[in-house]
Amino acid sequence: MSKANMQPIASREVGAHKSANDCWIVVDNQVWDVTDFLSEHPGGPSIILKYAGRDATKPYSDIHPPDLIKNNLPEDKLKGTLDQNTIDDEWLKPPPEETTKRTPANEKPPLSTLINAHDFEVVASQTAPPKTWAFYSSASNDLITRDANKSFFDRTWFRPRILRNVKDVNTKTKILGCDTTMPLFVSPAAMVKLIHPDGELAVARACQTKGIMQGISNSATYPMKDITAAGPQANYFFQLYVNKDRAKSAALLQECSANPRIRAIFITVDAAWPGKREADERVRADESLSVPMSSQRAQNDSRGGGLGRVMSGFIDPALTWEDLVWARKHTHLPLVLKGVMSADDAILAMEAGLDGILLSNHGGRNLDTSPPALLTLLELHKRCPEIFEKMEVYVDGGIRRGTDILKAVCLGATAVGMGRSVLFAANYGQEGVEHLFDIMKDELEGAMRLVGITSLDEARPELVNTADIDHLIPESASHPYARAVARGRGRSSPASKLWNGGAAKARL
Amino acid sequence: MSKANMQPIASREVGAHKSANDCWIVVDNQVWDVTDFLSEHPGGPSIILKYAGRDATKPYSDIHPPDLIKNNLPEDKLKGTLDQNTIDDEWLKPPPEETTKRTPANEKPPLSTLINAHDFEVVASQTAPPKTWAFYSSASNDLITRDANKSFFDRTWFRPRILRNVKDVNTKTKILGCDTTMPLFVSPAAMVKLIHPDGELAVARACQTKGIMQGISNSATYPMKDITAAGPQANYFFQLYVNKDRAKSAALLQECSANPRIRAIFITVDAAWPGKREADERVRADESLSVPMSSQRAQNDSRGGGLGRVMSGFIDPALTWEDLVWARKHTHLPLVLKGVMSADDAILAMEAGLDGILLSNHGGRNLDTSPPALLTLLELHKRCPEIFEKMEVYVDGGIRRGTDILKAVCLGATAVGMGRSVLFAANYGQEGVEHLFDIMKDELEGAMRLVGITSLDEARPELVNTADIDHLIPESASHPYARAVARGRGRSSPASKLWNGGAAKARL
Amino acid sequence: MSKANMQPIASREVGAHKSANDCWIVVDNQVWDVTDFLSEHPGGPSIILKYAGRDATKPYSDIHPPDLIKNNLPEDKLKGTLDQNTIDDEWLKPPPEETTKRTPANEKPPLSTLINAHDFEVVASQTAPPKTWAFYSSASNDLITRDANKSFFDRTWFRPRILRNVKDVNTKTKILGCDTTMPLFVSPAAMVKLIHPDGELAVARACQTKGIMQGISNSATYPMKDITAAGPQANYFFQLYVNKDRAKSAALLQECSANPRIRAIFITVDAAWPGKREADERVRADESLSVPMSSQRAQNDSRGGGLGRVMSGFIDPALTWEDLVWARKHTHLPLVLKGVMSADDAILAMEAGLDGILLSNHGGRNLDTSPPALLTLLELHKRCPEIFEKMEVYVDGGIRRGTDILKAVCLGATAVGMGRSVLFAANYGQEGVEHLFDIMKDELEGAMRLVGITSLDEARPELVNTADIDHLIPESASHPYARAVARGRGRSSPASKLWNGGAAKARL
Amino acid sequence: MSKANMQPIASREVGAHKSANDCWIVVDNQVWDVTDFLSEHPGGPSIILKYAGRDATKPYSDIHPPDLIKNNLPEDKLKGTLDQNTIDDEWLKPPPEETTKRTPANEKPPLSTLINAHDFEVVASQTAPPKTWAFYSSASNDLITRDANKSFFDRTWFRPRILRNVKDVNTKTKILGCDTTMPLFVSPAAMVKLIHPDGELAVARACQTKGIMQGISNSATYPMKDITAAGPQANYFFQLYVNKDRAKSAALLQECSANPRIRAIFITVDAAWPGKREADERVRADESLSVPMSSQRAQNDSRGGGLGRVMSGFIDPALTWEDLVWARKHTHLPLVLKGVMSADDAILAMEAGLDGILLSNHGGRNLDTSPPALLTLLELHKRCPEIFEKMEVYVDGGIRRGTDILKAVCLGATAVGMGRSVLFAANYGQEGVEHLFDIMKDELEGAMRLVGITSLDEARPELVNTADIDHLIPESASHPYARAVARGRGRSSPASKLWNGGAAKARL
Repeated sequence: MSKANMQPIASREVGAHKSANDCWIVVDNQVWDVTDFLSEHPGGPSIILKYAGRDATKPYSDIHPPDLIKNNLPEDKLKGTLDQNTIDDEWLKPPPEETTKRTPANEKPPLSTLINAHDFEVVASQTAPPKTWAFYSSASNDLITRDANKSFFDRTWFRPRILRNVKDVNTKTKILGCDTTMPLFVSPAAMVKLIHPDGELAVARACQTKGIMQGISNSATYPMKDITAAGPQANYFFQLYVNKDRAKSAALLQECSANPRIRAIFITVDAAWPGKREADERVRADESLSVPMSSQRAQNDSRGGGLGRVMSGFIDPALTWEDLVWARKHTHLPLVLKGVMSADDAILAMEAGLDGILLSNHGGRNLDTSPPALLTLLELHKRCPEIFEKMEVYVDGGIRRGTDILKAVCLGATAVGMGRSVLFAANYGQEGVEHLFDIMKDELEGAMRLVGITSLDEARPELVNTADIDHLIPESASHPYARAVARGRGRSSPASKLWNGGAAKARL
Repeated sequence: MSKANMQPIASREVGAHKSANDCWIVVDNQVWDVTDFLSEHPGGPSIILKYAGRDATKPYSDIHPPDLIKNNLPEDKLKGTLDQNTIDDEWLKPPPEETTKRTPANEKPPLSTLINAHDFEVVASQTAPPKTWAFYSSASNDLITRDANKSFFDRTWFRPRILRNVKDVNTKTKILGCDTTMPLFVSPAAMVKLIHPDGELAVARACQTKGIMQGISNSATYPMKDITAAGPQANYFFQLYVNKDRAKSAALLQECSANPRIRAIFITVDAAWPGKREADERVRADESLSVPMSSQRAQNDSRGGGLGRVMSGFIDPALTWEDLVWARKHTHLPLVLKGVMSADDAILAMEAGLDGILLSNHGGRNLDTSPPALLTLLELHKRCPEIFEKMEVYVDGGIRRGTDILKAVCLGATAVGMGRSVLFAANYGQEGVEHLFDIMKDELEGAMRLVGITSLDEARPELVNTADIDHLIPESASHPYARAVARGRGRSSPASKLWNGGAAKARL
Repeated sequence: MSKANMQPIASREVGAHKSANDCWIVVDNQVWDVTDFLSEHPGGPSIILKYAGRDATKPYSDIHPPDLIKNNLPEDKLKGTLDQNTIDDEWLKPPPEETTKRTPANEKPPLSTLINAHDFEVVASQTAPPKTWAFYSSASNDLITRDANKSFFDRTWFRPRILRNVKDVNTKTKILGCDTTMPLFVSPAAMVKLIHPDGELAVARACQTKGIMQGISNSATYPMKDITAAGPQANYFFQLYVNKDRAKSAALLQECSANPRIRAIFITVDAAWPGKREADERVRADESLSVPMSSQRAQNDSRGGGLGRVMSGFIDPALTWEDLVWARKHTHLPLVLKGVMSADDAILAMEAGLDGILLSNHGGRNLDTSPPALLTLLELHKRCPEIFEKMEVYVDGGIRRGTDILKAVCLGATAVGMGRSVLFAANYGQEGVEHLFDIMKDELEGAMRLVGITSLDEARPELVNTADIDHLIPESASHPYARAVARGRGRSSPASKLWNGGAAKARL
Repeated sequence: MSKANMQPIASREVGAHKSANDCWIVVDNQVWDVTDFLSEHPGGPSIILKYAGRDATKPYSDIHPPDLIKNNLPEDKLKGTLDQNTIDDEWLKPPPEETTKRTPANEKPPLSTLINAHDFEVVASQTAPPKTWAFYSSASNDLITRDANKSFFDRTWFRPRILRNVKDVNTKTKILGCDTTMPLFVSPAAMVKLIHPDGELAVARACQTKGIMQGISNSATYPMKDITAAGPQANYFFQLYVNKDRAKSAALLQECSANPRIRAIFITVDAAWPGKREADERVRADESLSVPMSSQRAQNDSRGGGLGRVMSGFIDPALTWEDLVWARKHTHLPLVLKGVMSADDAILAMEAGLDGILLSNHGGRNLDTSPPALLTLLELHKRCPEIFEKMEVYVDGGIRRGTDILKAVCLGATAVGMGRSVLFAANYGQEGVEHLFDIMKDELEGAMRLVGITSLDEARPELVNTADIDHLIPESASHPYARAVARGRGRSSPASKLWNGGAAKARL
């Protein structure tokens, strides 16, 4: 076709040639068929396809000399000139943003289509910023513990009973005397703002609405008072990382004591040292990020950008049982140890008079091949079944289903915590967290009915079959040091002595 | 746009509107925008899309009356008339053959090429409507129980004996006194019409031909009388979901009692609450679907389109052992509990004088991580071996091979049920179900011969090796409530008392 | 043919010789038959085959001096001159690019590049005709037993000893008194001709060269006398399927007795009924195929084209222990039962005075989930360790490595059989089977040295660790029928009575 | 730099800036630093990098307008003008075609982005020459042992303790009296030069810097004296393959004795015969390769190109316990057996008075299905726990994590060796090996803190849970030969007798 014969081409006609197999573009008012050229373009086909069926004059000219296209393409690829009269707003619209695999955050699927906790994780993996996804989803080393946390629940069978009247089912229970809609709390998880601007506030509002207790992380992205103010009828506990500078932690404890919505202190004891969360290290951190209560700021160093590591520099690795006395002095609130991983330490905690223990391996984020909480729970049954009468026992890590909650409760847990799932649900703000709670409650109710119970009082070990993992329960430890410490505690441990004489005396 | 204003539209222009998001077709020279209509087309969108951007007059006229399109579409969907001068060879080319993965329903492979139960499932996955596939194949939560149902059979080894005369092999046995060609029955499965218009009638005809007992689901898509009329020489049992409105269930029981082909009542006890079948929830239900015997109708609600859930609203979650007395009053037929999942409840059923129990977890569709029936069967051997002398024990879930049937019978089962496989075979109507039965009988005969037996009397536990799963058999439960109930039953349970004095007395 | 007589050959005629089995090329207008030269071509056959049936002058001249072909090929390979008048465009077209995935049979990789038994299987899967591959590789149902045959060896650990002088290692042993280079024999496998025209003859020649005993299948594609004549110094045993028409089997037994190279009869007892080998059924059989010794012919029926099934119709499913007396009458040769799968039957065989048992599940081809031979071997250790003193015990199924051989021998096996691997090696004819034997011997020697032994006398159970599978060994069977039979045999079984008074008396 | 000041830049100087981190190009005689621009280039960085350090005028001009670069880059990126006099043929050579998938060695990712031992393996798999990768990564047969070496560590759980003061952690320990920064040594691995020209010298330098003991392989690609000279403050042990020609080994022993940096002799006893490393066999060897201390040279033979095999021809398969006496005579250095795989041989070694044993299966490279060292370590606890008091016990194979080191030490190992990982790290020369050591130390410290200990004295069996593999520990062997030998040794084995009277007497 010679230029002389060229007819005006309507913009709509140009717009019809917009695929990789049939690609026209307009440059300087000339319509070119660049289909065959796509694969040869030194800059790759994508940038051309972005303007397929459209006017590419501007991006072309930014980079190329004016006659390059004419000199490079055969004459017959010039299809004609654009009919200026046919240009309309639709055709002039800027090309759509690149449709990379990662769905833009504003294209999350409707919340109603998410029907289980896994769905929230899938959506977060697709829509959360890469660093957020890395920080939330990562775990230590080879992820063995993280994955076992879940699989040990899956390896536990139910022993359902039939022909019980399960019309009315009641999931209510109490955690340290506080009412809760179900035996589920929000495990304290750091930096919720990474996934939603409302951060911990959104979680607090959802907890208030749904009657769930929220564990406030020492690494929350909002101050404690703002969080409890966001859900002023809800109950909270505060998760404390004991600071090398004890004065700072004491100030936090006093702030807790003064806040009537804070009902307990969970002192984290499984994070004496930061775990090696490699996915987190591999993604560069945004150094503008900070957490108010520990005065830490994100940074990238020679070892990577691991938020889990760089934000934990203030935590004291020298914390011991004796320091619990110090904690006891600064608050009247119930004290719970978060991160117990052996019956030995559970016994020590019981003997020291603590109010509860949270069996946890920090979501598999600290020490890889540390035991799943469910295994530790079974170890308690074998080694110290009396503990369930003396203190409350909680479990977290790997809880994804209502059946998981029920299994833990059958095996003696007062309640279980969910951490990552709540973070992923916060992707949708308050409404997302509420939807997650609704799902979990619905699943728990269904599971209770289908095993044949209507109240958590009836949740007993006889309803589960742990035969597939029972052989993994370790034998009684005979580590001399452990025994010595245990004996010490049993008789007159320094902690319990000081304890009795300390500020918490009245309470005991 | 009024007809008067319609301009001729070039064929090239029509051809540009050829996607699901922008679909024009030409019928009788008129250009219609049918984009919005695609999802509503009773015949599905595919057939229209085949002619997107083209002349659809011929296929349209083959099926529809001339004015249908005009009467159904808004006037503004008429875009104009086709410019006859612009028609060229390219535009007239017949539409390309469909390249979608999903084979059209009329392209099922010939029945003779299906040689095992798995094949039927594969074909159904490719040819059944998505909702049907979702409803039939789905199971609860993470599908752990569904998959274990099968794998536990695979983990059971045979201990074959040699040099036995296995020339003549006999698979015949009896179920509750009724002759059956082999120890296999059709487990009651809902809504067979979803995969074939003949639905349960096709199954009944096949059962009659092949001498197999059919369990009629309370959620059948045909009335009971039509089903038994379709196979008037066959034997049936009726699967009852006890209705919150007992009168309705009583009416069904009485209908059963009056129907000479109904030989037993299987009361479902593992579905006090609907399981969470997520694949089913995620696909929208066709709200025109109904089941006659429970007067339920499909619907989509805020939680999804789960047929398994919305169709089960009438089932009474308050059913207890005491209600069996009520059932006993309304029928003289043998009573079997469908859905026993523990030795504890099996013992209660035995003590209550029931005629049989079907060890079942509802195909893994109700409570995920409920135990495979094979494990419960082994639990009976450990806990109450005498039960096999007192009542008939059936098994379903995961049966896919003749070897599976034989293993269950070796371990004491009177017969086993197949549910999903029969649904998948019904894809081919009566003939498909007959073919499935032929395959199963052939496999069973081969397995009997190859383990060295010729009659099911010889099928004994010594012929199988369950060492790989024996460690999963739970210990005796010591749940106080269970024990109390069991003791009660052993002496003078309300059920057995009323029972003896009730309508069924003569029978006992 | 002298040059003087050479007639012009039409291009079409040349073009007809274009396969690896019949390959002509034209160079400088002369037509050469290079079929026999293909395998000797230093540049490999592929480049010649690219020009099969065509003019290769150009590529030939690019590389070779003009007279090379004439000097290298025998004169009779010169077929004539190309008739120039017959050259047309079609014939001149450049050779097609090679595209097919399936390597042509004549493009098997060089034998020297195959370094283990798996390699032979890979090559066969790529180069054998589809039906051959289906028949050889298939196994029953879901292939559970076939795969376990191998994996149970992999789950068995060695316990190697160090600092033994392993300079000289000796793999020699005896099978029923016959010398063998190593404790390996060819398990009788049907229809070797499917993969190579020399069939069982090639195997016999390789066995003779390498000092290995060959089991001749009743379904061999050559008559027994031809096979033993092919390797007249080798030792053989004959695998007998007892025919419904006993006279035919008696004739075979008498033929065996009269053939001095036949050293034993292995009566197959694990194939009372053909297994369901689905891959075999799905591929249509070539109905021209026949096996001489059982007078069977391949056919396709309504159930498929399973060679394993249709070729086995003559086998008597009514065979019992009593029939062994019949067998004993017709031959003086040692009698071995092939296909023992339980200690119970092993004990019966021992009590009946048989010469040996081959623990086998027919390569997983008959009853799926029948136990791996290695598990049965362990059962013998648990149930009747004295058996190893009384008779020879062989194992087959899953042997792929020299380490597998050594493990079986450590656990008491006299020797092991390989079936499929030999079939796959026969893909390369005699040379391939020899290469396989060399590999196995090399692997066995290496394994012996590395566990610290130099003679098979030292192969003891202490050198292996079967802890990973020990829990799968079944308990003693208490099946009443089994016990009765066992007792009968122990005292005065009909078989042993008749036996003692029968033809074999002198031998006993 | 203003244009006025620009000095001519030599082509060699330009050529030095040729990486993604430092990329200069010449366009129209001007030298530009485009490093920062790479990621912004619309055409992607690859096309620019193709001309890194070279003249890109031609490809630039083909596509871009003349001034684009000047207008787009900051002024300070203009480095100067090319000195035309320095242009030579080398510099003008066209850039190499990109063809290989394998990333060129000079495009290894920056060392700082490698954060664990796995990363080094991944990079080596992508950048090492194929033969090097095959030789280093290969293992025997089906790789069962190689993979189990790692998985057995992964199947071992920790039992972490909490609330211990873990502020200061000390990984120091001693190996045969020599200080080491941590309980990790370099397992002797052959032919380091295959991956880096500095070979064993780079390893030695890294060991000196980081305080790690290096095992020098008999098959090192540098002479012993050069290696110890490269790291003159480090400690070494020498790994001896005893030569068929004892004089050659004696000479090596004497050389060791005379070298003050050599602290022990590890005699390899698990390689009496070369393993079948198939990946190694399948890749052709470079026949120019040699190793000085064993005077071997690589070659390809009819069985393949296995370096592991052809380089080991000199090793004496006739080595026995008695030969240890010979070794004892030729050196005063501590003697350790490398390759013990059973408690039986460990006991013999203890009774013979050796200084240590290295539990090893040669990285799974010799006998497939030989036991993982961790299993042998557990066997020692079961069979001869006293051994840990009598001699040092080391472990290698599968160590990839600091947690692996700690588990081995908890179970009684004095130290563990890493072989392959060091080879892969040597890909980056000395710096890479140092980085690997830093990673391992960091992981070990983290693991110690997170299980609650600060010194390796506290590493006890109670801190690990081996329940998942305990059932695999073999029972006590009762092999008569083993017992006889053991008894012999226990009383008056030839070795211990000669030993006492031999050259090493004073030492004992």
